[in-house]
Amino acid sequence: MSEKKHIFNAKHVAIIGLGLIGGSVARGIYRAGFRGELVGAVENEADVKRALTLGLVDACHTDIASAVGQADLIVVAVPPAALAEVLAQIAAHAPRDAIITDTGSSKQSVVALAQAHLADRLAYFVPGHPIAGTENQGLDAGFNTLFDGRRVILTPSQDTAASALDCVVGLWKELGASVIEMDAAHHDDVLAATSHLPHVLAYTLVDTLAALSERQEIFAFAAGGFADFTRIASSDARLWRDIVVANRGPVLDVLDTYIERLARIRSAIADDDHDTIDGVFGRAKAARDEYGADRRESAS
Amino acid sequence: MSEKKHIFNAKHVAIIGLGLIGGSVARGIYRAGFRGELVGAVENEADVKRALTLGLVDACHTDIASAVGQADLIVVAVPPAALAEVLAQIAAHAPRDAIITDTGSSKQSVVALAQAHLADRLAYFVPGHPIAGTENQGLDAGFNTLFDGRRVILTPSQDTAASALDCVVGLWKELGASVIEMDAAHHDDVLAATSHLPHVLAYTLVDTLAALSERQEIFAFAAGGFADFTRIASSDARLWRDIVVANRGPVLDVLDTYIERLARIRSAIADDDHDTIDGVFGRAKAARDEYGADRRESAS
Ligand SMILES: NC(=O)c1ccc[n+]([C@@H]2O[C@H](COP(=O)([O-])OP(=O)(O)OC[C@H]3O[C@@H](n4cnc5c(N)ncnc54)[C@H](OP(=O)(O)O)[C@@H]3O)[C@@H](O)[C@H]2O)c1
Ligand SMILES: NC(=O)c1ccc[n+]([C@@H]2O[C@H](COP(=O)([O-])OP(=O)(O)OC[C@H]3O[C@@H](n4cnc5c(N)ncnc54)[C@H](OP(=O)(O)O)[C@@H]3O)[C@@H](O)[C@H]2O)c1
Repeated sequence: MSEKKHIFNAKHVAIIGLGLIGGSVARGIYRAGFRGELVGAVENEADVKRALTLGLVDACHTDIASAVGQADLIVVAVPPAALAEVLAQIAAHAPRDAIITDTGSSKQSVVALAQAHLADRLAYFVPGHPIAGTENQGLDAGFNTLFDGRRVILTPSQDTAASALDCVVGLWKELGASVIEMDAAHHDDVLAATSHLPHVLAYTLVDTLAALSERQEIFAFAAGGFADFTRIASSDARLWRDIVVANRGPVLDVLDTYIERLARIRSAIADDDHDTIDGVFGRAKAARDEYGADRRESAS
Repeated sequence: MSEKKHIFNAKHVAIIGLGLIGGSVARGIYRAGFRGELVGAVENEADVKRALTLGLVDACHTDIASAVGQADLIVVAVPPAALAEVLAQIAAHAPRDAIITDTGSSKQSVVALAQAHLADRLAYFVPGHPIAGTENQGLDAGFNTLFDGRRVILTPSQDTAASALDCVVGLWKELGASVIEMDAAHHDDVLAATSHLPHVLAYTLVDTLAALSERQEIFAFAAGGFADFTRIASSDARLWRDIVVANRGPVLDVLDTYIERLARIRSAIADDDHDTIDGVFGRAKAARDEYGADRRESAS
């Protein structure tokens, strides 16, 4: 009880973007028993109406200024392309001691934007990334259990105030997640490998098959393994282009390693080199069996 | 009723290999109400006992001769590497008019083996491939609903007797599947694209990540999308090596196309070429959303 009070010391919480991630934060905050005022901001008027109909927030705006004017805590959950403008608006209109966090899938790019737009508020900015999600987008996509049992990575820097970090850690715990801290560069390497690269591979596979002359038949005969393998290719294409571009360096590094290894397995298949194939397939199966928790949701 | 009698005109059915596929055929045959004798063959003595304990068959042997001596219908469901020897044994010991079918994941390689070993019985050999499966193997892996609502591809040739084809079509229908006929080369192209290539990509991805220095952390932070994407890398490594090698030509063709397209998207990411990235990701999402039935099982 007293812990809950501590975490929601914030009386005014603003969520910028009420799609899958922001909408799930909003639903989760209510589930946790928050009693302050929850204000949202979205891009379109239609979504303001929808947000209120769904009861996601107490009030909703299309201008950031109105949403953040009173905020103690601001959660930014907009697509990467909108982030610069949103941070600039927050800098112009939020109280000077408002704590600000984001949910973006790459962190060095976000830190760079924060340095540009929140230069005099860096102590109150806590970069974050919930490792949770689905392939759906928009206001109807969220749900209040999205973060249950999931991890959230925060990448605070030397500049980050302990009180701001505590507040954001508390928020995610209330939402059911556990919090890990690491530096932004490390986050970007890990996520490039586990999330961004798989998305690039899956999109490229489906596009490759769609271009084959047997297109129609190929998809008709695609069995369950294919459906699982390509589910992430149903994710929002624009969002993922932005994620991949925002995390270009780490993505290219791991993609190059992958391309090299794919060339090697290609030669092994051509040369009937069983040892090499067995090595790759066998090590992969062992690693997958060892580490592979069989969760169903996809995440960026 | 009378249809059931027609299909199970066979009084003696032999299943060679009682793993995921053969074991599911056995379970499905009993579920369908078969009243003849079902005989199995496996490789190891321990599996003979296990097969009888599980009640998969009425009798079980490690020598093919004993299993097929009386058979009207023989279903071969052994790993690709065992197929040549099994077909040779069948040729030596089965009644001359026994109908023979297989379940192998590539078909031109099977047809070549049949031409070598069943030369004077080609009329009674019906190459087949159920598009159903999971990433598990062995006698305990099968279940009697594995083929419900799934497709089975048969690749009969000019040589195939209509009566043999009818019998095998009837078998799969009794097992709950629908049957499609196509030629073996076409089957191999389609399956290389939808099944064999995704397995190569998934194994290579997991092996690539397992070799990175952040290995431990990478798998710890791999979220649901990654688990889905790599589930097929839990499939039996030896089986999949054999499948990929057996279908080498079609696999290399589609793998080369994929590698070419992956190089293209790599350049697009490096060059910040949004149009190309949007093209690939967007076309892929559209195709996946159009065709992508969200089945859960994986299949070879
Ligand atoms: N999807 C995932 O699995 C996942 C997982 C972890 C992190 N993330 C990250 O979380 C962030 C949000 O992703 P999402 O999946 O929640 O996206 P989403 O479902 O598309 O939602 C985006 C929301 O942002 C709003 N928005 C866009 N531009 C805006 C602007 N200029 N001002 C105010 N609101 C604006 C949109 O409003 P309208 O509806 O009016 O357009 C929408 O409500 C992204 O940075 C993403 O990388 C995503
Ligand atoms: N797995 C899939 O998803 C899938 C899908 C469609 C088609 N297929 C194809 O179906 C076939 C069987 O695959 P599976 O997944 O069922 O394999 P599995 O679970 O490993 O079962 C193989 C079975 O064959 C037996 N066997 C091996 N060598 C033998 C021999 N020389 N004589 C007699 N029995 C022998 C094994 O006996 P022991 O247990 O005693 O070793 C085992 O019972 C393969 O050709 C595969 O390509 C597989």
